[in-house]
Amino acid sequence: MANATWTRHHVLSLADFTPAEYDIVLQTAASFRQVLSRRTRKVPALQGQLVTNLFFEPSTRTRSSFELAAKRLSADILNFSPGSSSLTKGETILDTAKTYLAMGTNLMVIRHAQAGVPQAIAAEMDRMQSGVGVLNAGDGQHEHPSQALLDLFTLCTLLDHDNPRADLLQGKKIAIVGDILHSRVARSNLWSLTACGAEVHLAAPPTLLPPGFAQGFQPTDQPSRGSIHCHWQLDPALENADFVMTLRLQRERMGQHLLPSLREYHQQFGLTCDRISSCNPNVKVLHPGPVNRGVEISSALMDDPSFSLIADQVTSGVAVRMALLYLMTGGD
Amino acid sequence: MANATWTRHHVLSLADFTPAEYDIVLQTAASFRQVLSRRTRKVPALQGQLVTNLFFEPSTRTRSSFELAAKRLSADILNFSPGSSSLTKGETILDTAKTYLAMGTNLMVIRHAQAGVPQAIAAEMDRMQSGVGVLNAGDGQHEHPSQALLDLFTLCTLLDHDNPRADLLQGKKIAIVGDILHSRVARSNLWSLTACGAEVHLAAPPTLLPPGFAQGFQPTDQPSRGSIHCHWQLDPALENADFVMTLRLQRERMGQHLLPSLREYHQQFGLTCDRISSCNPNVKVLHPGPVNRGVEISSALMDDPSFSLIADQVTSGVAVRMALLYLMTGGD
Amino acid sequence: MANATWTRHHVLSLADFTPAEYDIVLQTAASFRQVLSRRTRKVPALQGQLVTNLFFEPSTRTRSSFELAAKRLSADILNFSPGSSSLTKGETILDTAKTYLAMGTNLMVIRHAQAGVPQAIAAEMDRMQSGVGVLNAGDGQHEHPSQALLDLFTLCTLLDHDNPRADLLQGKKIAIVGDILHSRVARSNLWSLTACGAEVHLAAPPTLLPPGFAQGFQPTDQPSRGSIHCHWQLDPALENADFVMTLRLQRERMGQHLLPSLREYHQQFGLTCDRISSCNPNVKVLHPGPVNRGVEISSALMDDPSFSLIADQVTSGVAVRMALLYLMTGGD
Repeated sequence: MANATWTRHHVLSLADFTPAEYDIVLQTAASFRQVLSRRTRKVPALQGQLVTNLFFEPSTRTRSSFELAAKRLSADILNFSPGSSSLTKGETILDTAKTYLAMGTNLMVIRHAQAGVPQAIAAEMDRMQSGVGVLNAGDGQHEHPSQALLDLFTLCTLLDHDNPRADLLQGKKIAIVGDILHSRVARSNLWSLTACGAEVHLAAPPTLLPPGFAQGFQPTDQPSRGSIHCHWQLDPALENADFVMTLRLQRERMGQHLLPSLREYHQQFGLTCDRISSCNPNVKVLHPGPVNRGVEISSALMDDPSFSLIADQVTSGVAVRMALLYLMTGGD
Repeated sequence: MANATWTRHHVLSLADFTPAEYDIVLQTAASFRQVLSRRTRKVPALQGQLVTNLFFEPSTRTRSSFELAAKRLSADILNFSPGSSSLTKGETILDTAKTYLAMGTNLMVIRHAQAGVPQAIAAEMDRMQSGVGVLNAGDGQHEHPSQALLDLFTLCTLLDHDNPRADLLQGKKIAIVGDILHSRVARSNLWSLTACGAEVHLAAPPTLLPPGFAQGFQPTDQPSRGSIHCHWQLDPALENADFVMTLRLQRERMGQHLLPSLREYHQQFGLTCDRISSCNPNVKVLHPGPVNRGVEISSALMDDPSFSLIADQVTSGVAVRMALLYLMTGGD
Repeated sequence: MANATWTRHHVLSLADFTPAEYDIVLQTAASFRQVLSRRTRKVPALQGQLVTNLFFEPSTRTRSSFELAAKRLSADILNFSPGSSSLTKGETILDTAKTYLAMGTNLMVIRHAQAGVPQAIAAEMDRMQSGVGVLNAGDGQHEHPSQALLDLFTLCTLLDHDNPRADLLQGKKIAIVGDILHSRVARSNLWSLTACGAEVHLAAPPTLLPPGFAQGFQPTDQPSRGSIHCHWQLDPALENADFVMTLRLQRERMGQHLLPSLREYHQQFGLTCDRISSCNPNVKVLHPGPVNRGVEISSALMDDPSFSLIADQVTSGVAVRMALLYLMTGGD
């Protein structure tokens, strides 16, 4: 596998990922996708290694995906669950992480409701020269790198099944629709999609896409860098789009006076078969899940296999996370 | 193993199980019981396969039994726990199931407080031509097929240890006592026991065994079919019984005005050493657990190894669930 | 491995452990520590055996440690979690244990908020001639043997890395500081440390170290037995101490009027770099975790690698628990 040049010990953010790194992840994931299509969908690559899932914020989908990825690699796994934890006994987060380090953890997968926690743990692991890698599985509204990488793998695999690579997105128009302001998924995707040369169009009401939002992700003058465009209406983002990513709308946003009503939101920004008719005829729709049917996307569109990539994203997730665990532990 | 003729992809109900199918389950379970008696109680039969436990209704005993069965077959396992789930985020049950399908699940074990959920998921899996089997681990007050199959295995093993088969129950008198109205265990057992030719006697107060209850399970005119008899007193059911199954009484039933008091219930329908003296001298007692000691059964009777099959039922459960997982995934 | 003479089926208390038994645990743990330093940190010793964690009292750290120890030995594991359990359905604790016995458990690891529960289950397992071993993972304020054994392994490994043995503690001065009255860790350590010939000094306010407390642990007149000394001030315990164990202070103790305030407690009994300057210059500090930083120990001292053995204790825990699981199941 193409990990000769992989040097990254932690995966905390995609802000500084290079196209070469994206290609390594894509190619490694492609080879694990093949493993997962065999009858015995398992390899002994991480036998005897210990992956610890520290999910301070509860999660089913992402935790299951990481847990399965680790099992498919034959790793041992510990799941830390906040409910029955020492945290309620006053232990600090760093001390919890150090406890799992001392037990022999090789790689920590960390989710926390507050941005920066995986970074703080990674810094402590480095300071201690522990050699343990940290993978950010979602930190507050900051980043969710493995989600953006599985989105990238889903898109590139569709464009070239046997040879997914970053440059396939060059010049593609990709719309990201919905609660961008609060979305770690959107932020990670902004880094990966622009790095791969896509033309990214954000669409949301102003309360969820404040003026200036995109400046932090401004592409540099590298020739391969894509572009970011912001819209407060849906239609200009969808026009001729090759792909549309819609984001989960948290119902709490209404109570925060950021939205008039779910119904009105759906009328203005909800994806439907009708609305995507202005896209490229081969357009595909993505959603990180879990979906609020009838809010950010209509049931009819979500269930239409000619448009929806939602199941492919979940399937890609296992292969991409296997790739990350494998690369970060220096797989043989 | 005798799975040449096994064609059932889902196990949702025992209503249409044939004696030949019962025999395949019994024989396959018998061979796994042998595996479980070795020092290394494990086979690689499902290596690399993924079994997902979707327990929307909390459970310890049944989930542990399925989890262990999957481990003994070397499968990978994911446990979905409702507490920390996407359901609280508005995801539909079908979408949750489809997420685990997309992760690569080969077989889903599903429990839900509402009848019909496993059937709905199985129908969706078929519509999608997913090839994934669904095993009903208890749906509302409808069915709990694996419990009735482990009861059957327990009974038939007792009657012929090395060659358990359905026709051993022909003509046996089996009493089922307790909260029959609300019991999915009773319903599944009614199908299996009558299909195997047993004479089933139900005993409960009228509030828990309404008139006409047994009609839905009316045996067809097949020669091997047993019979069902209803009693609102315990004694006629126990008289000369070969086996007595008592059911768990949920304490909530009192608040619903279905029972006068637990003490009175115990006096009228609780099994005791004394009361079972009218049974066949070799009578054995079963209970699906967990037991309310002193309510549906006395402590003395429960702990008497000459009568109680309760531990055997638990042991049988692992072998029978291994058999189901093996058969449903088309074991090699 | 040196288990020729290991005959103990349960590990419930250290009260009657012999120096020979301590040596077997220490030597077996030392060999597993070597396994854990390899790239593939796993042995097939317990393949196909079933270890069940019955943690009636919630725990993350200890349960993870036992779970990992079992995984490193290739055992199958079931985790019983009280939250979603049959206990809420009225099942007795013994019935829960018997259910897991009937599923095929080879060894039960039991934690319960009430003293005596592991002993009661062990007695029942013996009465049933089940052959199943019970390991007390903490029962009320009574004992926590595996914690004291990992403390012992940590100390003895420091004194002779390649040949840890009980007699290395002969004549060492070891201070135990803090909430001794409520501590099962302190009680188990009192048995092990005095059996190994250490001079144990207890230090706590009178409310947490009542007069006469040490009498129950009075050393017999065996020549190798150590001694116990009680202090209501910290300084005499620390003077020339070779090791200091500080205990977790539960914040509830204040509400129980056992303490004036956490700040005052820290001033009088909190360990700091300054205070331990009266100890032996090579003094090391232990804590069973989780730590209340700034209460029983200062952050600066806890994080000072020249003094703190806290991470070593966690690492030792996995090796020691592997040793116990291995010895108690009669590892080949």
